[in-house]
Amino acid sequence: MAVGQCDFPTMHTVKGIKLGTCNAGIKQTHRDDILVIEMAESGSCAAVFTQNAFCAAPVLIARDHLIHEPRWILVNSGNANAGTGKQGLQDAYASCAALAGEVEGTAQQVLPFSTGVIGEPLPVAKLTAALPKAVANLHDSHWDKAARAIMTTDTFAKGASMIIEIAGQPVTLTGISKGAGMIQPNMATMLAYVATDAKISQALLQQCLANAAELSFNRITVDGDTSTNDACVLLASACSSAPEILADSPEYTVFSQAVIDICKRLAELIIRDGEGATKLMRILVEQANSRQEAVQVAKTIAHSPLVKTAFFASDPNWGRILAAVGRAGVEHMVLENIEIYLGNVCIVENGGRSPGYTELDGQRVMDQTEITITVRLGRGAACEEVLTCDFSYDYVRINAEYRS
Amino acid sequence: MAVGQCDFPTMHTVKGIKLGTCNAGIKQTHRDDILVIEMAESGSCAAVFTQNAFCAAPVLIARDHLIHEPRWILVNSGNANAGTGKQGLQDAYASCAALAGEVEGTAQQVLPFSTGVIGEPLPVAKLTAALPKAVANLHDSHWDKAARAIMTTDTFAKGASMIIEIAGQPVTLTGISKGAGMIQPNMATMLAYVATDAKISQALLQQCLANAAELSFNRITVDGDTSTNDACVLLASACSSAPEILADSPEYTVFSQAVIDICKRLAELIIRDGEGATKLMRILVEQANSRQEAVQVAKTIAHSPLVKTAFFASDPNWGRILAAVGRAGVEHMVLENIEIYLGNVCIVENGGRSPGYTELDGQRVMDQTEITITVRLGRGAACEEVLTCDFSYDYVRINAEYRS
Repeated sequence: MAVGQCDFPTMHTVKGIKLGTCNAGIKQTHRDDILVIEMAESGSCAAVFTQNAFCAAPVLIARDHLIHEPRWILVNSGNANAGTGKQGLQDAYASCAALAGEVEGTAQQVLPFSTGVIGEPLPVAKLTAALPKAVANLHDSHWDKAARAIMTTDTFAKGASMIIEIAGQPVTLTGISKGAGMIQPNMATMLAYVATDAKISQALLQQCLANAAELSFNRITVDGDTSTNDACVLLASACSSAPEILADSPEYTVFSQAVIDICKRLAELIIRDGEGATKLMRILVEQANSRQEAVQVAKTIAHSPLVKTAFFASDPNWGRILAAVGRAGVEHMVLENIEIYLGNVCIVENGGRSPGYTELDGQRVMDQTEITITVRLGRGAACEEVLTCDFSYDYVRINAEYRS
Repeated sequence: MAVGQCDFPTMHTVKGIKLGTCNAGIKQTHRDDILVIEMAESGSCAAVFTQNAFCAAPVLIARDHLIHEPRWILVNSGNANAGTGKQGLQDAYASCAALAGEVEGTAQQVLPFSTGVIGEPLPVAKLTAALPKAVANLHDSHWDKAARAIMTTDTFAKGASMIIEIAGQPVTLTGISKGAGMIQPNMATMLAYVATDAKISQALLQQCLANAAELSFNRITVDGDTSTNDACVLLASACSSAPEILADSPEYTVFSQAVIDICKRLAELIIRDGEGATKLMRILVEQANSRQEAVQVAKTIAHSPLVKTAFFASDPNWGRILAAVGRAGVEHMVLENIEIYLGNVCIVENGGRSPGYTELDGQRVMDQTEITITVRLGRGAACEEVLTCDFSYDYVRINAEYRS
């Protein structure tokens, strides 16, 4: 049940980046569940990973491999290879080694990723048996197939693509993401892969990605559950004709903003595909003392099951929003200074319901499928936005039936 | 949908405590929605209140009145008088004054409480018009009526009662509570009223209640939402023939434990009546470095929508429990040291699925309606228990339909 505009866009190919997919039968037999991405030798690679203390085996391996100038990415869906102990680490490494054998690289040049059910052993024999086919399929036009191969409970493929200009030369950015549940990314997201043909050092690329992930994937939540497998990778093939992007240059500003824009779009698509979602909620917290405080209040609202079910019911039950702000853990908040808006309708001011508010006005906003909730704390000048979705019968159904 | 044994128990009357109820038509016309409790002049009163920064008008007034040796409690259900600004404060105070006029007390001797929908003006005229009838009904045997009068989305009345011995003399403790949603009490609970005929100073009574609330109401959660109206009151009428209970005495130990026991039972009943609940989950975290750390891990599991929906589905999807432990924010946790049990079945050890674990064993535990989840962190000696319930279709239905 996607909310709003989620069509798969035109995906510009990225010079120096090829993608290959195939079906390995890991959980399902009818669709591709393996993705291989290959980057030209000239490129550099940045990545951010989940902050869950128990991160999955492939995340541990990918973290280690990041310093070895990786050129290949191997993703499987249908199995997270998490909670799998030492065997899980061996399986993830064996997958890297198998791919390296197919492409004449080293195992350390492969970053492995897995997504799916936690706690089941990875069917590594099936995976490695399928690799030659995925490698044979490598092509720069396979972004759509790649987006579909990494899906689990997603209901649509997620992509974003743009061409910017660096020193008069075109630079392409194209990316895919997946995720619908267990979504409260922390330092990274579910899986997202963004590629560009820009020329940029690994250190600067990493800084660029960390900043973009913080402002995009770290500002969304479906259910407050941070996955064991979240990761976001940014590949820069250096194959464009544009000059190298240097730190503190105007070109870096342009490039960095483009990475933020792509990541924000890919993050928003995850919320539009939130498990059981019928509504997209933008929670904007303004006049906070700090950005951290603004995020804290926004996420408390975004995680409240009572707020989320009220939005599912299109019920302007603003008392639940007020209660969530009140329990957000911000010290010395003054109720009389708070303003809350549903869309452009002021519902709370001076400690109570706005005199001009009518249920009819509230209902008109709640009937929309995309709703902005604005909370003004009256404390400072910081503001932040968090995206989330509502909580429906289907959320319960999807998660009650997930393994069956 | 109550989970397990929730029958209303035999309620021992408490000397010096009378209760009166009536219908004021605040939200519904067919059942009592006003409760008045009167305590003998000799008594003392302790109370703990919600830590939500935006607490309701009656909570602000009750906090102020606590130092004036209150003898009356006035509760209405159907309207929370929260998010109601200055008018709400005036309405709460007017209710106290109206009751004071009926009973020849002062407004400051009345503690007001409200529970129900947030943000609607309190129909104070209806409330005060009904007070004479509630006062006329005051009787020491009306605990069952009292328990029903304070219900909102509760599906059954909640009570607990016991008689202990202090210096060879009987001392009675009897209490009621209400609550089913917006439940993650913080320093207090939803509404709970416990009365005893013990003789005890107000200061010691307050200490006793604060400790008991911390170990009972502050260890339960339905949905992680802390209400604006939570409160727990302990009345001691001093009418028993037992001598005064003094600090650091063996009698205080006995009395204090009894208050804890009553509060734990009243708290557990709230979880058994959790909105839409089909299962009661006891989350026991052992081998933590501190009790705070143990509570933090237990509450992260208890709040995870993915864990809660898996329990609703009776699906032993233990990966979700592991992921919740991993994102609990405890530093330097070592996956290899973690053990997780479903009932008496070990599911996780040495960083992965226990070698002896079978889905059949897990399923056998999950099919029960009361399940203990034990997490051993392998870090220290502290342990804590948190009670919660599962997340069902009915939770969504109840909260989507609440105001309609």
